[in-house]
Amino acid sequence: MIKTVRFTDVQIELAHGAGGKASRRLIEGLLLPYLTNPVLEALSDAASLEVNGTRLAFTADSFVVKPLKFPGGSIGELAVNGTVNDLAVSGAKPLALLSTLILEAGLSAETLELQIRAMAEAGERAGVNIVGGDTKVVEHGKADGLYITTAGIGLVDTRVKLSPGQVRPGDQILISGPIGDHGITVLLARGELDLEANLSSDTRAIWPLVELLIDKAAPGLRWMRDPTRGGVATALNELARDAKVGIALCEEKIPVREPVRGACEVLGLDPLHIANEGQFIAVVSKEYAEQGLESLRALPGGSLSAIIGEVCEEHRGSVVVRTSYGATRVVDMLVGDPLPRIC
Amino acid sequence: MIKTVRFTDVQIELAHGAGGKASRRLIEGLLLPYLTNPVLEALSDAASLEVNGTRLAFTADSFVVKPLKFPGGSIGELAVNGTVNDLAVSGAKPLALLSTLILEAGLSAETLELQIRAMAEAGERAGVNIVGGDTKVVEHGKADGLYITTAGIGLVDTRVKLSPGQVRPGDQILISGPIGDHGITVLLARGELDLEANLSSDTRAIWPLVELLIDKAAPGLRWMRDPTRGGVATALNELARDAKVGIALCEEKIPVREPVRGACEVLGLDPLHIANEGQFIAVVSKEYAEQGLESLRALPGGSLSAIIGEVCEEHRGSVVVRTSYGATRVVDMLVGDPLPRIC
Repeated sequence: MIKTVRFTDVQIELAHGAGGKASRRLIEGLLLPYLTNPVLEALSDAASLEVNGTRLAFTADSFVVKPLKFPGGSIGELAVNGTVNDLAVSGAKPLALLSTLILEAGLSAETLELQIRAMAEAGERAGVNIVGGDTKVVEHGKADGLYITTAGIGLVDTRVKLSPGQVRPGDQILISGPIGDHGITVLLARGELDLEANLSSDTRAIWPLVELLIDKAAPGLRWMRDPTRGGVATALNELARDAKVGIALCEEKIPVREPVRGACEVLGLDPLHIANEGQFIAVVSKEYAEQGLESLRALPGGSLSAIIGEVCEEHRGSVVVRTSYGATRVVDMLVGDPLPRIC
Repeated sequence: MIKTVRFTDVQIELAHGAGGKASRRLIEGLLLPYLTNPVLEALSDAASLEVNGTRLAFTADSFVVKPLKFPGGSIGELAVNGTVNDLAVSGAKPLALLSTLILEAGLSAETLELQIRAMAEAGERAGVNIVGGDTKVVEHGKADGLYITTAGIGLVDTRVKLSPGQVRPGDQILISGPIGDHGITVLLARGELDLEANLSSDTRAIWPLVELLIDKAAPGLRWMRDPTRGGVATALNELARDAKVGIALCEEKIPVREPVRGACEVLGLDPLHIANEGQFIAVVSKEYAEQGLESLRALPGGSLSAIIGEVCEEHRGSVVVRTSYGATRVVDMLVGDPLPRIC
């Protein structure tokens, strides 16, 4: 049972949608007190339901990214991959998706068609059909072209039991690839900054990687999450809090591409706070971590996966990063919203 | 296999979201050609999936109603009831809901809290929990307070087999109560018309009524739909087209409250085109129709249900209404969008 937090803000701000502290306060302080039930209170990426003895995962996300297209992807791909990935990190094979569209009057049919095609192709790559949905239209000016919501249903792999409660000191923190590509790509695609970089979004369906990790390391798999809004730091802070453990990351092990590192330095951001749309974090017991990592590295798209730290007894409830010079710094959840409308 | 329609409009207009002819053209001409798969092509209210031998229904809808509150309901109640009802008319007992919010920066926390409470209460009345979701925030002006999307999963009652292909001449058309209350209520709540009426939205979960009808008339139950956008006329025109039958309604049998009739006369609208949010149409074989009707009438909220017409051999593909004077008129699907943003 999560303790209720008081939500005292008088109005909604962009930060409430950023996936960081303000989002958590909104959810725990204003939504959970009314919508209380054991499944929701788990606050995981997907709800878990047992129906006639079959364990299903069920998840939905809305996408309001701006701009609609950016290097490496578009809102349509994000909408498919984002929901597929929420199922995947719940240990569930995606079975079917629904998609609802909120369209702005005046949206060109060509733009819409491009996005429908992007969704169809992303669905095909992820091996999942869009089996239904809904379309609404609002007046010109009342949306930015289109907002997409996708819901997904998946079949939970019975070999895994994932939850913060499974996490133990000594467990290893595995990341599937370089972090921050998506957030920085979208930020630069807005053209508001005088920065350019050879970078594209990492949006992709991670199920093939997750499925392999389950095959190779299921008994040691404790917890997974796709670090989207709020980045790796927010996901791990939530884990540290919920599992009542400490987390220690080793800075030099964290894969970050040069353009992301450069943009973050210029902008005063931490790559650990930047959104990813094609990566996942897995906490794996020590005895399974190396073989899990090796198998991921052998798969296309997994070559840059890495063990970036471990769960520890110390500094319970928080995440620290050890630099290569031996210093340590505490990394908090994302506060505020440096990059609104990122997904 | 639905024949593909050409979508030749260059941009999206409000009518594409009205649930009538333009919506159908958008779906069949632009969405289906890309998202083709057998489940989607059924174009039913909910997708039907078999998982480990269990038949599930899976549905999602976005809600953009304006204003957010109106007599008898609000966007939060609509969002819960609308998705529960899409499951119900698929013969499925609602198991769980997800809810995603797109919030406008500047929305008052009080307004949001009211809607969360409305959703929670509607869920409780419908006997279904909201087990997860997502929250995004867009800039001020980029949404009207809030848009809500709900997704639902339901367990299909194995006693029923519903589809247009089951419908036969002689089958009876049953409606669960008076039509047009929701659409006219929202229209008047906008205050743009110099009309007042003692009327409130019919928003409610129809599962208790549907469940009883299944109990009493399952072998004769052919097809169900909740006539939301586009109204009874659009739902029945789609049925006539898909089932290749004619449908004849008897005007004096159609329950319409006086304020709805009056407003429609003043505005030049047909109550058969007005959205409902708490009614359903059931096509029932002749031998089960009367006992189905009687059982519905005995249930709270079902006393005004009625048999309003029948399926016939004549005028296949269209819907006609016989007036009390013996005249008949053809009633088409909704064309254009007389009442935008109704749900």
